[in-house]
Amino acid sequence: MQQRINLAHGEGGELTHKLIKEVFEKAFGHGEHTKYDAPMLECKSEIIAFTTDSYVVKPIFFPGGNIGKLAVTGTVNDLAVSGAVPKYMTAGFIIEEGLSLRYLKEVVDSMAAEAKKAGIRIIAGDTKVVEKGSADQLFINTAGVGILESGQKLHQENIQEGDSIILSGTIGDHGIAIVSAREELGLISDIKSDCASLNGLIQELLQKVKGIRVIKDPTRGGLATALVELCEDFHFTSEILEESIPIRNDVHGACDILGFDPLYLANEGKMILIVESKNKERVLQILKKHPLGEKAAIIGRVTSRNVSAGELFLKTPLGTTRRLQRLSGMLLPRIC
Amino acid sequence: MQQRINLAHGEGGELTHKLIKEVFEKAFGHGEHTKYDAPMLECKSEIIAFTTDSYVVKPIFFPGGNIGKLAVTGTVNDLAVSGAVPKYMTAGFIIEEGLSLRYLKEVVDSMAAEAKKAGIRIIAGDTKVVEKGSADQLFINTAGVGILESGQKLHQENIQEGDSIILSGTIGDHGIAIVSAREELGLISDIKSDCASLNGLIQELLQKVKGIRVIKDPTRGGLATALVELCEDFHFTSEILEESIPIRNDVHGACDILGFDPLYLANEGKMILIVESKNKERVLQILKKHPLGEKAAIIGRVTSRNVSAGELFLKTPLGTTRRLQRLSGMLLPRIC
Repeated sequence: MQQRINLAHGEGGELTHKLIKEVFEKAFGHGEHTKYDAPMLECKSEIIAFTTDSYVVKPIFFPGGNIGKLAVTGTVNDLAVSGAVPKYMTAGFIIEEGLSLRYLKEVVDSMAAEAKKAGIRIIAGDTKVVEKGSADQLFINTAGVGILESGQKLHQENIQEGDSIILSGTIGDHGIAIVSAREELGLISDIKSDCASLNGLIQELLQKVKGIRVIKDPTRGGLATALVELCEDFHFTSEILEESIPIRNDVHGACDILGFDPLYLANEGKMILIVESKNKERVLQILKKHPLGEKAAIIGRVTSRNVSAGELFLKTPLGTTRRLQRLSGMLLPRIC
Repeated sequence: MQQRINLAHGEGGELTHKLIKEVFEKAFGHGEHTKYDAPMLECKSEIIAFTTDSYVVKPIFFPGGNIGKLAVTGTVNDLAVSGAVPKYMTAGFIIEEGLSLRYLKEVVDSMAAEAKKAGIRIIAGDTKVVEKGSADQLFINTAGVGILESGQKLHQENIQEGDSIILSGTIGDHGIAIVSAREELGLISDIKSDCASLNGLIQELLQKVKGIRVIKDPTRGGLATALVELCEDFHFTSEILEESIPIRNDVHGACDILGFDPLYLANEGKMILIVESKNKERVLQILKKHPLGEKAAIIGRVTSRNVSAGELFLKTPLGTTRRLQRLSGMLLPRIC
């Protein structure tokens, strides 16, 4: 096989066939599925969760992961935060002509490894190749299907005044890792992306604790944007305490130097949970025992319910309060 | 709203929110679904079909369609040829900074219109924006989920010697339409892409006729590549008659001028059916009555079964026979 991807690899002919056999099938083990345009899959559930995401992160390799690992964890997490058990996913590759085959293999192998870890099966894919200069190395799109196991439905409608807001760990790690991986800022080098599949931890929580109203992963747009969206979508107002939000010292330092607000930096292995107050300690306890939740903290609470336009407020260490909005304008393009 | 897409539209903040509300939600009518990372969907079936495809067609508008219509018909057809009823799809957009918002809206509106026509719901999406020069206007990735209705499973394992090979219409229209839409060849202007959703016709066939062994849409790589794949995957040898393959005169002419073999040109609204011989006339009759099957023809037959390496042969009008292989090398990049 040639050492670089060329346009013919995306033509649907002999070279596409070889690429599928030698790279994708080898890693993902599709087996019989590749014979069909749409593989048939067992799905013993009356409700499925279905999600999609495209990944255009730049660079495609960064501390703590690469675009492939990110594509799997992102899809798994979108399903898991919805309360679903991730089952199947697809992966579409848009490859720039000239990409090193070694890079592609490394990305694909990372996907296979992460999918195995998370218990999701990559069952179909697609490969397109575009001319040099018409894409940037590699874009990946994934879609995922999950099933809802009995009794694990989240009840957003039960959110009430006094509910606790819990964050599963430090924020901003992914955003700063990406910035540091871009050549111009190669100095901040020991911050790794937090990208990780959260489904195991989420399933444990849903099995052991009642009263978890909603879970959301604060990816693009960061903690602040994700919480503003929850407040607006489910009509509640909430307050978070700046001091209580876990942030690594070096991430804090990098943000100070670069002028970023960590509240708006992307995370790829964290979640926000809104939990009935009486269960908050139990949730925190389970989180803290898990490697992906060690730094979990209660960061705020729901202050009023059934407001027409939900709002988010930040209480600073000085005791002042300011309203947080969605990320506005451009912070960091191509973060995921 | 601004008239061109900029990087902030892909940041997950305020502008992404506006773009989703004002373009995608308006066209697709997601409604409540946008609140969730993975919408929950009714799925009364124990078997689902799940497929994905990326679309990088160049140019994004062409005679007979655009990248959006193509993305929907392609997904619908991948599900339908598998025997599934298309139910839900997702759409991920990778947009080059600077794309005209008007173009994006036109593409999205075409998607909504085609999805409505085909009876599939676009239930989730994703938007990424990359810097000018890092993509080529617009790439779309879709994934689709379909359900298998009782009694509609295709039985490839029943393929036998003597089965008929039926093609639902003329080949090469899509390929030539794309070539003609590229600036350098603006002369061949009245050939339209055949892109169309075949699910209605396929459902009718599956309800009315028994003995349909397999259906496949000959997209990238064309009729020859699709048939070679069927022969290899399901271990049979077949022969098709060159004279019997429907090709428009102007497509034939364009192929002669441009040096393309129509057997390898992409189609986006055609299907190959392998049918038990005794039912071939019934299948042909149903096809010919449908606007998408008017030019259907029996083009060949299965000549032997259970061969370890299935092969495809073409019988020419001169009576000679030659073996057809998969598309080899590069014919037309970015055809879909």
